[in-house]
Amino acid sequence: MNDILKQLGDILDERKDAEPDSSYVASLYHKGLNKILEKVGEEATETILAAKDAETSGDNKDVIYETADLWFHSLVALAKLGERPEAVVNELARRFDMSGLEEKASRNQPK
Amino acid sequence: MNDILKQLGDILDERKDAEPDSSYVASLYHKGLNKILEKVGEEATETILAAKDAETSGDNKDVIYETADLWFHSLVALAKLGERPEAVVNELARRFDMSGLEEKASRNQPK
Amino acid sequence: MNDILKQLGDILDERKDAEPDSSYVASLYHKGLNKILEKVGEEATETILAAKDAETSGDNKDVIYETADLWFHSLVALAKLGERPEAVVNELARRFDMSGLEEKASRNQPK
Amino acid sequence: MNDILKQLGDILDERKDAEPDSSYVASLYHKGLNKILEKVGEEATETILAAKDAETSGDNKDVIYETADLWFHSLVALAKLGERPEAVVNELARRFDMSGLEEKASRNQPK
Repeated sequence: MNDILKQLGDILDERKDAEPDSSYVASLYHKGLNKILEKVGEEATETILAAKDAETSGDNKDVIYETADLWFHSLVALAKLGERPEAVVNELARRFDMSGLEEKASRNQPK
Repeated sequence: MNDILKQLGDILDERKDAEPDSSYVASLYHKGLNKILEKVGEEATETILAAKDAETSGDNKDVIYETADLWFHSLVALAKLGERPEAVVNELARRFDMSGLEEKASRNQPK
Repeated sequence: MNDILKQLGDILDERKDAEPDSSYVASLYHKGLNKILEKVGEEATETILAAKDAETSGDNKDVIYETADLWFHSLVALAKLGERPEAVVNELARRFDMSGLEEKASRNQPK
Repeated sequence: MNDILKQLGDILDERKDAEPDSSYVASLYHKGLNKILEKVGEEATETILAAKDAETSGDNKDVIYETADLWFHSLVALAKLGERPEAVVNELARRFDMSGLEEKASRNQPK
């Protein structure tokens, strides 16, 4: 997992200055927060449907794929609002009292 | 970020064998996949509402918190189906062609 | 169907002036639009899950129940914003070019 | 409102036997329940976003439009499962103890 989400955060930041038609992410930023949040809602539904189908079929491929889509679009929304993936991971660490630089940093944040 | 999601995956796995009333996660597993997926839907809605409010207020605290809730419950759903957080991160790495063991491993997966 | 939705609109309007703890609807108005919209999102998810289960079981009881919950909470949201059920039915009539007073009235609305 | 939903139910029933490319509804039936439920999830999200924007702008046009989309796609899902709009309206009537043929009919349904 080492730094994959951090790298993804860098990519999402870089594409903020790109032309709208240069990439899917750049086009989403350009369309605005509502369009990004519509995608979050769509991917949540697709994750739920894929999980129900996985329960029946025993095949988890689609539910992993849709969950990645859900996380990805939620990170685009956060990037649009000026936040990075680390903020989400730190919040998860805080809840489960996991050690690490991230967790310590998050202790200093108001919540 | 290093290993926070991996540690969370370990916690989610451990709680599968726990008594239903021993923790929130254990109670969710016991209630079954539908109840877990209802939570995924709820947290997606709360993330969307928090993002809209953040857009107006400039305060991102709640949207980070709700996104962590959304990721968390999607990981509980995956754990219920026998999958780990690494599967989601590997799928994200695969899409953005990021280097790392995870990314290479994912190349061998059918998709 | 005659006037059931109109009667429901009247009930929703009446409860706007009621004490927060006098009914479920009054308490929802008091909690505000975000809480009402959270319920819309929840009921949408429950409708989707119930439809998937109906597909497998052949029993439609729950999906009817959840769809009624979804419509109901969407009408509470509209009531909170000052709209009535007729507005939704007129919009449906307009799309399918159905006759009736409602449909004619809707032709005069800007869209 | 008189019979608009009943007429819509007739239209949805008729289109079940139509060629997939003859109308939007026929194409949805052909794509199957998952695709119809994805639309229910999408329209729920769009309703929520439109309601938040209406709260700020005071303009309810879009939230009425999106709610009609949400009801419409939930009726397509029910039609796919063999149910009609009357079932939803009867369930709403039952809850609010409203009079009418529909309400009496619903009393005889198992719940």
